[in-house]
Amino acid sequence: MTNWSDIDTNAKGWIKEAAEIIKGSFSKTLDIQTKSNRNDLVTEIDKKIEQFFIGKIRKNYPEHKIIGEEGFGDKPKTMDGIIWIIDPIDGTMNFVHMQRNFAISIGIYENGVGMIGLIYDVVRDELYHAIKNKGAYMNELQLGPLEEVNIAESIIGINASWVTENKRIDSAILAPLVKDVRGTRSYGCAALEFAYVAAGRLDAYISLRLSPWDFAAGKILIEELGGDVTDLRGKPLNLLEQCSIFVSKPGLHEEVLKKFLCNGDW
Amino acid sequence: MTNWSDIDTNAKGWIKEAAEIIKGSFSKTLDIQTKSNRNDLVTEIDKKIEQFFIGKIRKNYPEHKIIGEEGFGDKPKTMDGIIWIIDPIDGTMNFVHMQRNFAISIGIYENGVGMIGLIYDVVRDELYHAIKNKGAYMNELQLGPLEEVNIAESIIGINASWVTENKRIDSAILAPLVKDVRGTRSYGCAALEFAYVAAGRLDAYISLRLSPWDFAAGKILIEELGGDVTDLRGKPLNLLEQCSIFVSKPGLHEEVLKKFLCNGDW
Repeated sequence: MTNWSDIDTNAKGWIKEAAEIIKGSFSKTLDIQTKSNRNDLVTEIDKKIEQFFIGKIRKNYPEHKIIGEEGFGDKPKTMDGIIWIIDPIDGTMNFVHMQRNFAISIGIYENGVGMIGLIYDVVRDELYHAIKNKGAYMNELQLGPLEEVNIAESIIGINASWVTENKRIDSAILAPLVKDVRGTRSYGCAALEFAYVAAGRLDAYISLRLSPWDFAAGKILIEELGGDVTDLRGKPLNLLEQCSIFVSKPGLHEEVLKKFLCNGDW
Repeated sequence: MTNWSDIDTNAKGWIKEAAEIIKGSFSKTLDIQTKSNRNDLVTEIDKKIEQFFIGKIRKNYPEHKIIGEEGFGDKPKTMDGIIWIIDPIDGTMNFVHMQRNFAISIGIYENGVGMIGLIYDVVRDELYHAIKNKGAYMNELQLGPLEEVNIAESIIGINASWVTENKRIDSAILAPLVKDVRGTRSYGCAALEFAYVAAGRLDAYISLRLSPWDFAAGKILIEELGGDVTDLRGKPLNLLEQCSIFVSKPGLHEEVLKKFLCNGDW
């Protein structure tokens, strides 16, 4: 019998340790735009953090598998068994340019079912966490179930690139949505945008190109709160592949799919 | 002889006092989306904070004029004399929906010249401040002069609404910029987006519709750091009217104007 509480406690402890390593890498000034080797630096930190997690998991749970953004984990062909899906630093561009608005993201699945979701906003010290059927929290604060909202009253996370010419979707499909909502935001960190939907700060979040490590944790948090997580056609996500993402409060999800996405030729 | 240091000290103290009033208004839970009277609440707090500032200014500097978003100040026809331009809560929608990512913004001008700029991110406790010719700071940390950056390496604050159908600008004008930059972000709070340019987190920020209280403080901070603040045609801002805004690091400002804005029919 898997001890999920033990896994949760360990994962949270490792996340806090990893966060200290990341914060230790910050330059002491705000003069980040002139750092000549900043791309090298971030690659190094990303890799170091992923290897830190992998070392801990291999030692404590040698039978578990790992999918990590940096590629040091396994390459499972199926979701059988227990799989940790890890993004050591989600929002790398923010990490490099801003030293904020990035997150550590860990989703742990058993036979394809999301069991533990952890998203840690390192700089704000905000840990969004959920164990399946035990509620979702931001630090000690329990998050309420996501309630229905209509399009006109909603704030949606969507980047300007998805409503201008791009390789993934005809820009005319989502542009009318931008007009109909109360407002749009874009933070450049998928894991945090999932967390903001979980916390009720955003009503929905849309992206055309995410990898499993970007959404594995967020999916668990949102579903624990009664929200919907699908691709942009309303289909279930595949945790082993890149896909589009539409995460939303209930009601709004159905309304947006019906009005903007289900009848388009795309 | 005006004692600007005294004015600066007072303004900072009043901002911290106002922030306590704002934070005291927060509900104790994250359940903000279900608050039925949230629009009433925000109007009430906005007004209360503006009146708080006006009371302090009238008492301490009776000869100064005030322009405030909520309309309790004066309606000066010119920029003559000393004028405080105040937004008690910039980013009202964020305040209501998120209880974060909003700011108090105060710019103080003498005969049209920016003397003191103050932007306070209440929830993060980050005060961006500048006195003309004395440098710009985030809390105690001095901000470096803004350095040149090219379009391909820049992250720009621009909302999706300005690249989709809207009343202010043909959406085709700025859409190609979204493709050319490294990334775009949108935080829904003009004062903070100015502050992020000042701190080097964003390289530029564009909006088609801002009022003097949205940009009065930010303009002073950016210009103190050597950045450019104009409207979208490259013309100086009028501090008594709504206008478009293009705030940017040097170099990038000229490049974007030349490539996207100066030769269009708009």
